[in-house]
Amino acid sequence: MHHPTLDELYSLYELQKPYTVRTPLLYCELLSKLINGTVYIKTESLQKTGAFKFRGALSRLQTLSDSEKEKGLVAYSSGNFARGLATAGRLLNIKVTIVMPADAPLIKIEAAKQQGANVILCENNSPSREEAASQMAIELAAENNYTLLHPFDDIELIKGQASVTLEVLEQSRELDIALDTLVCPVGGGSLVAGAKLALETAQYQMQLCTTEPEHFSGMKLSLKNRLLMTDEGNHPTICDALQARTPGISNFKTLGSNTDLLALSIQEPFIVRAIQLAFQDLKLVLEPSGAIGLAALMQNPELFESQTVCIVASGGNVDFNHYQKLINC
Amino acid sequence: MHHPTLDELYSLYELQKPYTVRTPLLYCELLSKLINGTVYIKTESLQKTGAFKFRGALSRLQTLSDSEKEKGLVAYSSGNFARGLATAGRLLNIKVTIVMPADAPLIKIEAAKQQGANVILCENNSPSREEAASQMAIELAAENNYTLLHPFDDIELIKGQASVTLEVLEQSRELDIALDTLVCPVGGGSLVAGAKLALETAQYQMQLCTTEPEHFSGMKLSLKNRLLMTDEGNHPTICDALQARTPGISNFKTLGSNTDLLALSIQEPFIVRAIQLAFQDLKLVLEPSGAIGLAALMQNPELFESQTVCIVASGGNVDFNHYQKLINC
Repeated sequence: MHHPTLDELYSLYELQKPYTVRTPLLYCELLSKLINGTVYIKTESLQKTGAFKFRGALSRLQTLSDSEKEKGLVAYSSGNFARGLATAGRLLNIKVTIVMPADAPLIKIEAAKQQGANVILCENNSPSREEAASQMAIELAAENNYTLLHPFDDIELIKGQASVTLEVLEQSRELDIALDTLVCPVGGGSLVAGAKLALETAQYQMQLCTTEPEHFSGMKLSLKNRLLMTDEGNHPTICDALQARTPGISNFKTLGSNTDLLALSIQEPFIVRAIQLAFQDLKLVLEPSGAIGLAALMQNPELFESQTVCIVASGGNVDFNHYQKLINC
Repeated sequence: MHHPTLDELYSLYELQKPYTVRTPLLYCELLSKLINGTVYIKTESLQKTGAFKFRGALSRLQTLSDSEKEKGLVAYSSGNFARGLATAGRLLNIKVTIVMPADAPLIKIEAAKQQGANVILCENNSPSREEAASQMAIELAAENNYTLLHPFDDIELIKGQASVTLEVLEQSRELDIALDTLVCPVGGGSLVAGAKLALETAQYQMQLCTTEPEHFSGMKLSLKNRLLMTDEGNHPTICDALQARTPGISNFKTLGSNTDLLALSIQEPFIVRAIQLAFQDLKLVLEPSGAIGLAALMQNPELFESQTVCIVASGGNVDFNHYQKLINC
């Protein structure tokens, strides 16, 4: 695999800047007390489109060749990547077709449509909703001569997601703090893979922590076994954006074997409590997948004792109907 | 009235900084489109204690004399000032007694108690809940030799609230933007009075816009008549933090007659829609009083046509029970 330089990652970040929000890094008193340390939240829920995925989607479109831009592209996504891609397509004037699972949150489907994307809902859940939708996207690409994008298994995408971490490093320099751990929600794993690239090229020593829902902990399993594995657990999760059972190949490879890494599997009740904490104490709307990093500290405070931690709150796209059920839990 | 210098305001701001959050200034795409201009939200909902009032409360305690600090103090407040004062008291180790109306939001009462303040609930609503609570605070001060603070009619407090605007000016310089209008929620009026002091001493030309709930528009009425007036409307409002019917005397005097000022009275349905917009599009939890500035642009976009506007989102303290009723409206 081609390893990018820091210059390359920074130039992608620079390309993104006219379109992205420099999301605030907010101190969290409650979680700081909980771990006897210092906790910051990187509020990617405040990113354009309400999730960090906009960064990678934008970057991916910006680096297409002219002929690829002309043809348009197709991707599949459970939601936040769809919205990010649709918005980036509108901003850059590139035709975007997105296959989404029919049971994706309405707010995410509507948002992608409103941004002018051609949204195709995939009813098929076999063998999994991801694979069915993926297959449909492949067929659409072949039929229409579209460029095919994989939402979380694409090295170009990973490079685009690295900007979250570059920005965290910039902000930590401004605040004059040294971070011990960066906590990343993991679905397919592009966020944490991007973080790895950023830390490696910037030569910044920091532990990475992956957080996955129980039964969807393919990354943890794969890292443990040093082999791409699938989490076969058949329970559902409230984290609609983290329902990948197998990590993206490129993401897994990017993490490699020499990463200082803590892989956690998070139980649902902690995620619910994290959403409540965000509402009540941080005044931030987080979707379940966006709150899982906070939940990690609530579930295992002892693993972060006395550390300076940055948690990526990766998104805030949640239907209010669903949200009130979660808060009232 | 003694007029402070810019140095004096900045030194109060500097004193606050170790305890306060430099709250983000966030671009708002939807409202920008609505007015064909550029809209930023000053997110004081993300301030410590969930509201801007912490700044003034902190400043007020920091500038007490040593003997006043020793004796402790008493104040009355409908909520956000109480929480701010209680937290500041805990941080500075000053004994704080707070009279609150018995019908104040539970979240605000509980928060003040949790911070160690002595909270006394006032059941009396006659002649108004503010005046009854105020009278009770005066009696407590006399009985216990406490220093008496008025939550929104105190020139020292106004100076402390000026830091919101100083910070907005700093941030606008960093972003290289020239602001046309600063929109301030008005209860008693300390936020907008602080803004006036800051703009005047910094010699920054900007229109101030006061936003009050219908039937609680004492400031608008007073400004129009150049005389302290009471809004006698007897309808309730969802803005629990803006229920003052008469502006604070010092606040009104500070605004004076030569201020470039737009005074708006906001209808409740727009406030509800603003709370919904904050949830859905900004991923921010705003209380009704914190959303009224956004509502002003939604109610009267024509008054802000093509401007660069900063709206102070003054607070985010809202019970979830109440919040879900508002969102489901």
